[in-house]
Amino acid sequence: KKRYNIALLPGDGIGPEVISVAKNVLQKAGSLEGLEFDFQEMPVGGAALDLVGVPMPEETFTAAKQSDAILLGAIGGYKWDKNEKHLRPEMALFYLRRDLKVFANLRPATVLPQLVDASTLKKEVAEGVDMMIVRELTGGIYFGEPRGIKINENGEEVGISTEIYAAHEIDRIARVAFETARKRRGKLCSVDKANVLDASILWRKRVTALASEYPDVELSHMYVDNAAMQLIRDPKQFDTIVTNNIFGDILSDEASMITGSIGMLPSASLGESGPGLFEPIHGSAPDIAGQDKANPLATILSAAMLLKYGLGEEKAAKRIEDAVVDALNKGFRTGDIYSPGNKLVGCKEMGEEVLKSV
Amino acid sequence: KKRYNIALLPGDGIGPEVISVAKNVLQKAGSLEGLEFDFQEMPVGGAALDLVGVPMPEETFTAAKQSDAILLGAIGGYKWDKNEKHLRPEMALFYLRRDLKVFANLRPATVLPQLVDASTLKKEVAEGVDMMIVRELTGGIYFGEPRGIKINENGEEVGISTEIYAAHEIDRIARVAFETARKRRGKLCSVDKANVLDASILWRKRVTALASEYPDVELSHMYVDNAAMQLIRDPKQFDTIVTNNIFGDILSDEASMITGSIGMLPSASLGESGPGLFEPIHGSAPDIAGQDKANPLATILSAAMLLKYGLGEEKAAKRIEDAVVDALNKGFRTGDIYSPGNKLVGCKEMGEEVLKSV
Ligand SMILES: CC(C)[C@H](C(=O)O)[C@@H](O)C(=O)O
Ligand SMILES: CC(C)[C@H](C(=O)O)[C@@H](O)C(=O)O
Repeated sequence: KKRYNIALLPGDGIGPEVISVAKNVLQKAGSLEGLEFDFQEMPVGGAALDLVGVPMPEETFTAAKQSDAILLGAIGGYKWDKNEKHLRPEMALFYLRRDLKVFANLRPATVLPQLVDASTLKKEVAEGVDMMIVRELTGGIYFGEPRGIKINENGEEVGISTEIYAAHEIDRIARVAFETARKRRGKLCSVDKANVLDASILWRKRVTALASEYPDVELSHMYVDNAAMQLIRDPKQFDTIVTNNIFGDILSDEASMITGSIGMLPSASLGESGPGLFEPIHGSAPDIAGQDKANPLATILSAAMLLKYGLGEEKAAKRIEDAVVDALNKGFRTGDIYSPGNKLVGCKEMGEEVLKSV
Repeated sequence: KKRYNIALLPGDGIGPEVISVAKNVLQKAGSLEGLEFDFQEMPVGGAALDLVGVPMPEETFTAAKQSDAILLGAIGGYKWDKNEKHLRPEMALFYLRRDLKVFANLRPATVLPQLVDASTLKKEVAEGVDMMIVRELTGGIYFGEPRGIKINENGEEVGISTEIYAAHEIDRIARVAFETARKRRGKLCSVDKANVLDASILWRKRVTALASEYPDVELSHMYVDNAAMQLIRDPKQFDTIVTNNIFGDILSDEASMITGSIGMLPSASLGESGPGLFEPIHGSAPDIAGQDKANPLATILSAAMLLKYGLGEEKAAKRIEDAVVDALNKGFRTGDIYSPGNKLVGCKEMGEEVLKSV
């Protein structure tokens, strides 16, 4: 029997509910494929702030770093919104990404046929959307130096953030994107603002140079403002998108909303080696926390990504993906994806229905 | 009789067609209100590159600078796409904005009842959308230093762009936004990424500090990733949005596509003093240039903004706005906004129909 160490970081708001459900699903799918998991649950974000005064305790990081893969719930909440920057729950995500060196963030945006009505886009525009956004996660303007609020020569405050990418940072994320596109429909669109930003000019140059190593992938380039439009005009034109940290933040959220079911979308953050970080893309939803109303499917599907991308256990991953489709086909819906004619269930019951089909 | 000098910069692609139509409309609306215009037409962008080898000739800038207001068509085209950065048509926009110091870019996104079907959003989501995006236009990552492609200590290329805002730059755009919101529905949403970027932390601090001077305006803040989602989920929640140069670039294009009629949307760029710059937000559309297919309404409505915001001639502006609605009510449509049951017309004919109603 294969054994894996899984770090569970439930975090805040609906995090604990969805993690508890996803853990059960992961365990069953694994055991049916001969896998055993040792789970270690650790506090992170606001929960850690309340417990030990910092958003990312040393022990949590050590447990995460030593695991084979990390499943995270959600981070943040009104309660800590007025905290100073370094004492905000979100900083935990920041440190985790940076210190685990998980530079490649994979964010699928898929419209399932069962849920096409949940989109605010017209049915004919939304149906069949199936894209993967590959976002650079440990560089760019999120981490670039210099940064801060300084006083200039006129005694005036100036806010500074630096968008900076070295060639090797662009190359490694571009390779992940080319490999991803190769396993999908073979189309890669690199999004930048090379008509204005020097950081984007280098980005485009490096991505273009790599294309010759992937002759089976069709590469195109698009400016970020145009991409923001095209995602609404005709999202089906996209297969795989690769872009920098801040554009990826914006476009992946836009794309997720196009699917209409942000409660359904998982993500994976991967490095060159070491454990990957898997989490739903939705937030901590403090307004519905603790009420058994959350949609656990994004976290369950993150567990599937954990199996597939984190551990290379594709069969177990497939079991989970199929089980989710099964539960949807049977008409089970949490409130966020409910439409008349279906069966409204809570977080736990949705988990049980998925579990039955695993 | 009042006389005004208007600089006309037709530019590239469909630019000349739409400018020629808008000029006639402007002239008629003005003369009915006792205004006379002296037009001076000058080359810019690709047209200027072909003529004199630079995208923004000295003479063009001088004419623009000395005018009372500038009406611009569109800039760019495949032909110059491989040019080096400083010889690209788009640089003309860059220099114009910077040297005219037009820091406030007003971009309305409105869904007209006649055109609600043109949106890819569901009718109930799109109808009634009426927002104004106030984008900072002469600062931030578009102009910040240091920038460029450098070699780092490992001999590796590094691309650098700097997002930088001084307090007074934030204050002056925020004031324009508060004033704009005050004249609209009194709601202002400031969009930033203050959970990550120091430049955004200063942005939020300054905007918040100004709010006490505008007690009649309801101020809120939103992260840019969330804003990209909310524009799709429920665009009607927005009245006035204020944001930095790059976020404004992305979000205003997204908002324009939500209306489904990018061929309808004008823009105004204003400074503290000196002439304003007025232009449609659509591009030069080289694929349909010279075929009398372009929609001139965005440029005609830009002429209305020129009258209203540039010259303070509200009555003449209103004449143009009403005439556009009139032509639409009569069923005239260019190809981009055509739907069955209406009358398909070309650029010139649409112009004539508007002219009749002025
Ligand atoms: C919470 C925030 C720092 C984070 C980001 O901007 O990366 C989030 O928006 C995300 O996309 O994971
Ligand atoms: C052409 C380009 C430089 C420009 C910009 O990014 O500002 C355009 O996208 C715009 O929004 O006016």
